Amino acid sequence: MGHIDIIERASHLCDRLVVAVGVNSEKNAFMPPTERRDALVECTQHLPNVDVEVFSGLLVTFAKQRGCQFIVRGLRAISDFDYEFRVSMANRSLEPDLETVFLLTREEYSFLASSVVREVAGLGGPIEKFVPEPVRRRIQAR
Amino acid sequence: MGHIDIIERASHLCDRLVVAVGVNSEKNAFMPPTERRDALVECTQHLPNVDVEVFSGLLVTFAKQRGCQFIVRGLRAISDFDYEFRVSMANRSLEPDLETVFLLTREEYSFLASSVVREVAGLGGPIEKFVPEPVRRRIQAR
Amino acid sequence: MGHIDIIERASHLCDRLVVAVGVNSEKNAFMPPTERRDALVECTQHLPNVDVEVFSGLLVTFAKQRGCQFIVRGLRAISDFDYEFRVSMANRSLEPDLETVFLLTREEYSFLASSVVREVAGLGGPIEKFVPEPVRRRIQAR
Amino acid sequence: MGHIDIIERASHLCDRLVVAVGVNSEKNAFMPPTERRDALVECTQHLPNVDVEVFSGLLVTFAKQRGCQFIVRGLRAISDFDYEFRVSMANRSLEPDLETVFLLTREEYSFLASSVVREVAGLGGPIEKFVPEPVRRRIQAR
Amino acid sequence: MGHIDIIERASHLCDRLVVAVGVNSEKNAFMPPTERRDALVECTQHLPNVDVEVFSGLLVTFAKQRGCQFIVRGLRAISDFDYEFRVSMANRSLEPDLETVFLLTREEYSFLASSVVREVAGLGGPIEKFVPEPVRRRIQAR
Amino acid sequence: MGHIDIIERASHLCDRLVVAVGVNSEKNAFMPPTERRDALVECTQHLPNVDVEVFSGLLVTFAKQRGCQFIVRGLRAISDFDYEFRVSMANRSLEPDLETVFLLTREEYSFLASSVVREVAGLGGPIEKFVPEPVRRRIQAR
Repeated sequence: MGHIDIIERASHLCDRLVVAVGVNSEKNAFMPPTERRDALVECTQHLPNVDVEVFSGLLVTFAKQRGCQFIVRGLRAISDFDYEFRVSMANRSLEPDLETVFLLTREEYSFLASSVVREVAGLGGPIEKFVPEPVRRRIQAR
Repeated sequence: MGHIDIIERASHLCDRLVVAVGVNSEKNAFMPPTERRDALVECTQHLPNVDVEVFSGLLVTFAKQRGCQFIVRGLRAISDFDYEFRVSMANRSLEPDLETVFLLTREEYSFLASSVVREVAGLGGPIEKFVPEPVRRRIQAR
Repeated sequence: MGHIDIIERASHLCDRLVVAVGVNSEKNAFMPPTERRDALVECTQHLPNVDVEVFSGLLVTFAKQRGCQFIVRGLRAISDFDYEFRVSMANRSLEPDLETVFLLTREEYSFLASSVVREVAGLGGPIEKFVPEPVRRRIQAR
Repeated sequence: MGHIDIIERASHLCDRLVVAVGVNSEKNAFMPPTERRDALVECTQHLPNVDVEVFSGLLVTFAKQRGCQFIVRGLRAISDFDYEFRVSMANRSLEPDLETVFLLTREEYSFLASSVVREVAGLGGPIEKFVPEPVRRRIQAR
Repeated sequence: MGHIDIIERASHLCDRLVVAVGVNSEKNAFMPPTERRDALVECTQHLPNVDVEVFSGLLVTFAKQRGCQFIVRGLRAISDFDYEFRVSMANRSLEPDLETVFLLTREEYSFLASSVVREVAGLGGPIEKFVPEPVRRRIQAR
Repeated sequence: MGHIDIIERASHLCDRLVVAVGVNSEKNAFMPPTERRDALVECTQHLPNVDVEVFSGLLVTFAKQRGCQFIVRGLRAISDFDYEFRVSMANRSLEPDLETVFLLTREEYSFLASSVVREVAGLGGPIEKFVPEPVRRRIQAR
């Protein structure tokens, strides 16, 4: 839900927003990229200027190819700043003119992390407070 | 030793303390849950109001079933606050009326983490300064 | 509002809770200790096992005199852990058998700090989302 | 120099950028607001879509009056996240539809803080590596 | 006591160690620089390769004049890293070939900060666990 | 490049510097220890007082056997302090008279972590800005 909130808010800040689903991401353990894309398409169908696309390779290369001017990331108050900063600085080193801008995740989603959802789901706990319906349905189908 | 210190101090703050050993915990790599429980029973036998129990599923579900009023966690000055906060907030979201209270780990144990003990033990180093005798004996038997 | 939330939740964890208002606290800039006490009495009148008392000198000395078993502090996800840890460890050094237990501040109050309220109030901004009515009334009367 | 870098980069992300100099800011100790504005005008004269304006009262009120869609803040890797997060969340609470976006300060400016510049300047040290020429000139004139 | 511990350990790592007492330091509130020097001389008289000297101006300028090869700072696990990093990086910017090396403060002193000592002393509390005898005597004489 | 920078600067602070390559390190995923040693020898051939050696077992045991007086670690502004502190304190507990001293990584390398290099390399991205030539050549040969 934190991701959807960031997507909604970012969509108001730009003409067109591309939600990039990485083929190679280590964090995709929940479901394969195409299923992830389908869930995101369903969750963002009320946002007309948002596209969801699967990509492989470096994010900065994909962003340049798609003509993006900046990368948007959500920053949680309770998050791994080191990871966010390292990735952003590496991206800046790779593509100096592609900015990363951070939006602050809403307080009520600040504790949400895929690891928490995965653990609760793995233990059979309820996850409907943590993920939107199209995601919950796909996780529980697995 | 940090865990035992927290258990001792927490046992003074409540009528009955249940030490919960998770079957599903990813952190159990050292030894299986029942062996962990046996070591903890041995380490806490001087504390008459402490029970050690193995559980599966969500911690908050177990805590409610056992009639617990709150969950106690140790907070190290040198620790992963993000992890602690995320878990506590997820637990509060799952069971709003079950409080988590934190005790501060003693300074001399603040660097102790299972990863440190595991690494020193794996390299054949001495671990008697890090873990109590019933744990050291079981680790070295493996 | 973060303080009132902590007081409410802490009152469920103990037989009697004393809210200690320090005469010497540097953070009292808003209003004098007795006015602070009056506001807190008003805010906690629905909690029958809560007392509000003004004290001078060391908190640990006051807590021992009042027969307290532990000190409760709220810990915000966005807070100065260093300050909290330093104070708690100094208190433990001064009175080793007086525990400090931390409750986690609710997400929606995690950004609230007296400095933020003071700044917004000083600039004439609305503070009713940040402090309860008995506090707002007193701040705006000044 | 960190501020100028953020202003330059932010000016590429929007049609018009207003640099807001607060009359009431506690951090203005260096020089009065109008002198600060003059220095900023001089430093940004190569950026045609940047205005520098002095304001009083709440930043969010000023931003709404000027028709701003979002607030830009620089986030240093070595910075007071707590302060940044508290201010941003308070601003969101006061004006929910005014986003704050963060840009990451360049590595080479990450240690720069007004307190460092003030201390070095106060001790008679060289500050030309830390602040642009129009600022250095004004600081040393004082 | 944390400072004395760092001085002792640093004295084993170099031929000659100069303890630099800043005239201009904002943190000198406790006592004037010469009294601070006298207390440090008394506390370090068992360390033959340690000098205590009062200086004014920039620390890096003093260090270069005295022919120092590096600056030693204690780093507490519970400390303001931002401050330490900002100062070290500013010093490196001012004198690129003067290294700063950090020693880790012992766990038992990790909570000690001059602000804690000052607060406890100001409230009439016992400080003999926090500062060595020559310092305690001077603080209580004031 | 961050490691090489730390090695260069540390080599100026001591008579002889041993770069210790751990056989058992979990972080060796890039290449086997002997290849790592060869790359480091190539990168440090301009530093006459630097040796590169492969070791197994505990680092503190190796350091004592080699007659080292202290361990040098680089500390990045954007790094896992917890990990660094835990390891250093565990090492101090194992060998109390072997100091760990920290040097601050240069700002321009502060985001560099082996995980970032590994991810960029794994995605076929350019890594010549991140690692020296002898390392890049070996990584890309794999």
